[in-house]
Amino acid sequence: MTQFFRSPSDKDKKLKKAVATLIGTRPSNVELYRLAFMHTSVSKPLNGKDVRLSNERLEYLGDAVLGMVVAEYLFKKYPYKDEGFLTEIRSRIVNRESLNLVARKLGLDTLVEYDPNRRTVLARTSMYGDALEAFVGAIYLDKGFQFTRKFILKRLLSSYFDLDKVVETNINYKSQIIEWAQREGRDLRFEVTEKGSARHKEFIAELMVDNEVFATGTGFNKKKAEQSASEKAIEKLNLVKPVS
Amino acid sequence: MTQFFRSPSDKDKKLKKAVATLIGTRPSNVELYRLAFMHTSVSKPLNGKDVRLSNERLEYLGDAVLGMVVAEYLFKKYPYKDEGFLTEIRSRIVNRESLNLVARKLGLDTLVEYDPNRRTVLARTSMYGDALEAFVGAIYLDKGFQFTRKFILKRLLSSYFDLDKVVETNINYKSQIIEWAQREGRDLRFEVTEKGSARHKEFIAELMVDNEVFATGTGFNKKKAEQSASEKAIEKLNLVKPVS
Repeated sequence: MTQFFRSPSDKDKKLKKAVATLIGTRPSNVELYRLAFMHTSVSKPLNGKDVRLSNERLEYLGDAVLGMVVAEYLFKKYPYKDEGFLTEIRSRIVNRESLNLVARKLGLDTLVEYDPNRRTVLARTSMYGDALEAFVGAIYLDKGFQFTRKFILKRLLSSYFDLDKVVETNINYKSQIIEWAQREGRDLRFEVTEKGSARHKEFIAELMVDNEVFATGTGFNKKKAEQSASEKAIEKLNLVKPVS
Repeated sequence: MTQFFRSPSDKDKKLKKAVATLIGTRPSNVELYRLAFMHTSVSKPLNGKDVRLSNERLEYLGDAVLGMVVAEYLFKKYPYKDEGFLTEIRSRIVNRESLNLVARKLGLDTLVEYDPNRRTVLARTSMYGDALEAFVGAIYLDKGFQFTRKFILKRLLSSYFDLDKVVETNINYKSQIIEWAQREGRDLRFEVTEKGSARHKEFIAELMVDNEVFATGTGFNKKKAEQSASEKAIEKLNLVKPVS
């Protein structure tokens, strides 16, 4: 039987090689990457501490690094677009569905350690996208900001996002939620109110299902407020959103 | 009268000097900082473009830089705290009220250009905190990441935040919203539902006012979900949140 047993150092070599291929250089601290691929389902308790050892802390860090680098990239790419546009496009890039997709394309799904008994539940979650964020966090701690910035720009943004397509795609949450209501035989309407002065108007849309407020959204105009409320309703209902 | 007239170059010198004092070195591109302090109430149209010239784009960038640097700082300062804790503490540091306060302490209120006819409205808004974020964005573009990181850590975090106090402060949004309901004679209750499996439970709290869903929040446990729903309700009602 021992011939099938993989020693820790074999596993180490495999991980080191995979990371080196992904980031284009040898990792300095392979432990960081091992942690990045440790899903919470296989988390380990830390003696006498509240926190369990998993990739969730690295995911928090990587999410912030990714968000910042994408923010800067869009800021420079679109010098004549306002912050509403930049925020919207960033959220289309850095969202659960697209990060999951990119993580799979990078092959992170073969590196993530998780409890296979929980596979069916996990398959629908953001396990791989979360691991991608944790991976970015690990790269940042291992190699610093400029290296990570280049990795995000070259290996993620340029390789996997057709930005023109992302910008053109206009996800219509409102029509989706209306379809849902028709399917389910529910009464759906929007109640929109205005706030603020003439020059700084904000719109608040309440999405009413059977005469009760089901979700609320805000925006610069009525359409955006309704879109936002519809998006929240879709999340609340766990309806699948299309990948952008 | 002309003796009271300030020439553009006088204004330039004043701004350059103020920025140099704030960041500890001469600004390379003073135009970035001028833009950072240009509130939307004095925004200028750009020929043939959709966007108006104001600090809102820089605010978007600075928000991302600030969020990332604070994320890393907390990640390293609290090695045994989970991502929920880190996220919560970060949002207590990087929120509208505390940024407004820090901006005033830095003296940014004397640098921000805005339309004084709109003063009463603006006084209650996040004008100075927004300018602080835009200022961070300008520093990043002018001086790069490492410089900005040091500025945030030394000039903002170490100088103006008592982190122990921030961590100890437990803002009780739920009790605040209950007080509001009693004051206003409204009927308030929470309806909490569970989602997910035994190990990955999520709680959804609906804050009901007079039997209608008024706000919804989610969390790892019932208490957090109710806190989150209460916080959203407070925002929706524009009730003043205490400065953390």
